[in-house]
Amino acid sequence: MTDIDQLVAAAGAKAKAAAPALARADGATIDRALAAIGRRVLAAAPVVLAANAEDVKAAEEAGIGRGLIDRLRLDEGRVAQIAEQLATLAAVPYPEARIFVRALPGGLRLEEHHRPVGVIGANFEARPNVTVDVASQLLKSRNGGVLRTGAAALRSSVALFDAAIAPGLADAGLDPAALQLVRSAERGAAVALVRQPGLIPLVILRGSGESTRMLSREAAQHGVRTLAHADGGGVLYVDAAADQAVALRLIAASLDRLGVCNRLNLLLVHDAVYDAWLPSLIATLKGLGIAASLPPHGHARGHEWALDDGREATVTIDRAGSARHAAEIANEETSRLAAAICTADDAAAREFMETYTGTGVFWNAPTRLLDGFKLLEIPETGINIDHVPGPRGPVTFRDLYVRQYVVRALEP
Amino acid sequence: MTDIDQLVAAAGAKAKAAAPALARADGATIDRALAAIGRRVLAAAPVVLAANAEDVKAAEEAGIGRGLIDRLRLDEGRVAQIAEQLATLAAVPYPEARIFVRALPGGLRLEEHHRPVGVIGANFEARPNVTVDVASQLLKSRNGGVLRTGAAALRSSVALFDAAIAPGLADAGLDPAALQLVRSAERGAAVALVRQPGLIPLVILRGSGESTRMLSREAAQHGVRTLAHADGGGVLYVDAAADQAVALRLIAASLDRLGVCNRLNLLLVHDAVYDAWLPSLIATLKGLGIAASLPPHGHARGHEWALDDGREATVTIDRAGSARHAAEIANEETSRLAAAICTADDAAAREFMETYTGTGVFWNAPTRLLDGFKLLEIPETGINIDHVPGPRGPVTFRDLYVRQYVVRALEP
Repeated sequence: MTDIDQLVAAAGAKAKAAAPALARADGATIDRALAAIGRRVLAAAPVVLAANAEDVKAAEEAGIGRGLIDRLRLDEGRVAQIAEQLATLAAVPYPEARIFVRALPGGLRLEEHHRPVGVIGANFEARPNVTVDVASQLLKSRNGGVLRTGAAALRSSVALFDAAIAPGLADAGLDPAALQLVRSAERGAAVALVRQPGLIPLVILRGSGESTRMLSREAAQHGVRTLAHADGGGVLYVDAAADQAVALRLIAASLDRLGVCNRLNLLLVHDAVYDAWLPSLIATLKGLGIAASLPPHGHARGHEWALDDGREATVTIDRAGSARHAAEIANEETSRLAAAICTADDAAAREFMETYTGTGVFWNAPTRLLDGFKLLEIPETGINIDHVPGPRGPVTFRDLYVRQYVVRALEP
Repeated sequence: MTDIDQLVAAAGAKAKAAAPALARADGATIDRALAAIGRRVLAAAPVVLAANAEDVKAAEEAGIGRGLIDRLRLDEGRVAQIAEQLATLAAVPYPEARIFVRALPGGLRLEEHHRPVGVIGANFEARPNVTVDVASQLLKSRNGGVLRTGAAALRSSVALFDAAIAPGLADAGLDPAALQLVRSAERGAAVALVRQPGLIPLVILRGSGESTRMLSREAAQHGVRTLAHADGGGVLYVDAAADQAVALRLIAASLDRLGVCNRLNLLLVHDAVYDAWLPSLIATLKGLGIAASLPPHGHARGHEWALDDGREATVTIDRAGSARHAAEIANEETSRLAAAICTADDAAAREFMETYTGTGVFWNAPTRLLDGFKLLEIPETGINIDHVPGPRGPVTFRDLYVRQYVVRALEP
């Protein structure tokens, strides 16, 4: 094992040792810890902001781009937001974890219990607020955690851990060791995080693109499961029976942000209206500052513009012969993250929704809604585009459990 | 690609092409197909038994052991059982696949839909009845399938496919191509089955032991998910507060079969009663024809006797200091398939059940109950001992879905 593997394994071992006690904690204790972390984030604002100022200074000196520095930077308002989100999460009710299934012969009863996984890893980009976001969701799910963030935010994350997360856990009588931060700026720490199946069987990979794809492959090689979406890109199909005004509104609503996975990426238009509507579609995009990539394309139809540095402000346009054809294109040539149909025709909508197999499907609604908080009012732990049973689409703390069957006497 | 890879890929492609129509079929149509397959199994008994006789003859000539030949052999009674199981499965109700979640702002509603995976692979040993068993469960779950069985049962499986499964699907108006049998006696077919992530993203591996372990690893390397339990072995902890008669009854009930994964494998006894009770425990085992492996052991504490050819009739015995200690041994040194506690002490039982993290936990009940049909009255597709979210423990057709969020207008 390399040094960084050892560092991650040591963090995993500490979290694993503390995880069983966390798994037994009741909901009120967990919510007290979340509230305590929130209070401590506010109280520790000066310490956190000082650490963050160092991170920002180092990033500026390293010539890191303005967008990244903006995401890295904390201020009083953002610190207050972190505390607010903790309060929101603390207020979310817990799902039923012990479900009576049936009476069994012999005076026995069968229950289905949902238990924490144990320790869950999380890798995320250099945004300090995500440190608290992920830590709090693992805590709410009663799982231990090993968190790893990009080097640029490490001072801020350490400050949040040491001044708020760890003491907040202790305030509620919980062992702070359950949540660990990998205190290393090495890039190899992300790879080390997905190589510990015995300690960290599941890793949440935030963010898209090649590094997530690589980490997913590396995890699979080591028998570690990931929740990830290396690829995204929303699809919008404008049907022949669409209300054109609704279509233009959906396009605008799907492009309010360009760097996100669920934005409009591929716009499919029914053959019957393609020629007539193309000018107004292009004009709408132009009004939003977006270029249209028209056929014949010099790229794959599912090419994800959000990941194409410098060309994010692009949408691919193409024809589709029917609602089913459009859904098939979305199934076969995109990530299967999310697709929408714009139509006033019930049958076309049904056909599209039955055919599309991605994680979220939308009728006269924008793919930007594919988000745990927008859909479920629960902070999103991550997004998973796996095509097999398990948590899929927006993942929340409620998904981070394993099933256990329990058989005991019918009458206690 | 090798020839066998191409053969499996071709079967996967046919199943994938037919899968979307199967996914749309309503429950009544599926159940009609199951009933039709049952009728055809009975009608085709002469053809099936003739093919099976050839399989048995070839196996005898190859000097295959009596146990395997017994499992391979069909007769009128077993054929009737196959038809009965189809009727049982057809009668199982379908779980709700479209769940209203909540109203969203803007006059929209959110639903959670459960959709079939698409195509699921299945690899199983040379038992002809399992061919129909697995095919029928994939059908009930509305998934296409690619089935691969050991060479010894291939003629029987082909006969069941051609005389019952395929025509039974057609009887109900379904495309027979949705379910495929790999028609090759090559051992490499199993490996080829777990190498097609684009066609067969999920593979059920029936059976335990090294070959399942190898196939799980191979699948992971190729990004294919498996439902498998390479290792098993039930644990029984006899507490100081156990009723000795109950303990002896549980031991006997846990050892009615020796080649199965959920039989008693490791018997842990509380320190306080170990010396006093050991003689009667050993005597009970002896009466069942089972040897006790006593400490100090010349093998790992979790060594699985069911997989130890020729030494299946063995149970490992050891001490434990407490209910929690026993559960920790079961967590750390066994497969985490199933564990039971025998005690009259509520607190000890609770401690054991809270600490043990395996797929099934039993209080004064035998681990042999860890079985989809015994627990849920639904035929078991397989057992999965994964430690991450998703189907876990006994897997049934109800688990073989992926989640999709659907957003549409609140009022249709």
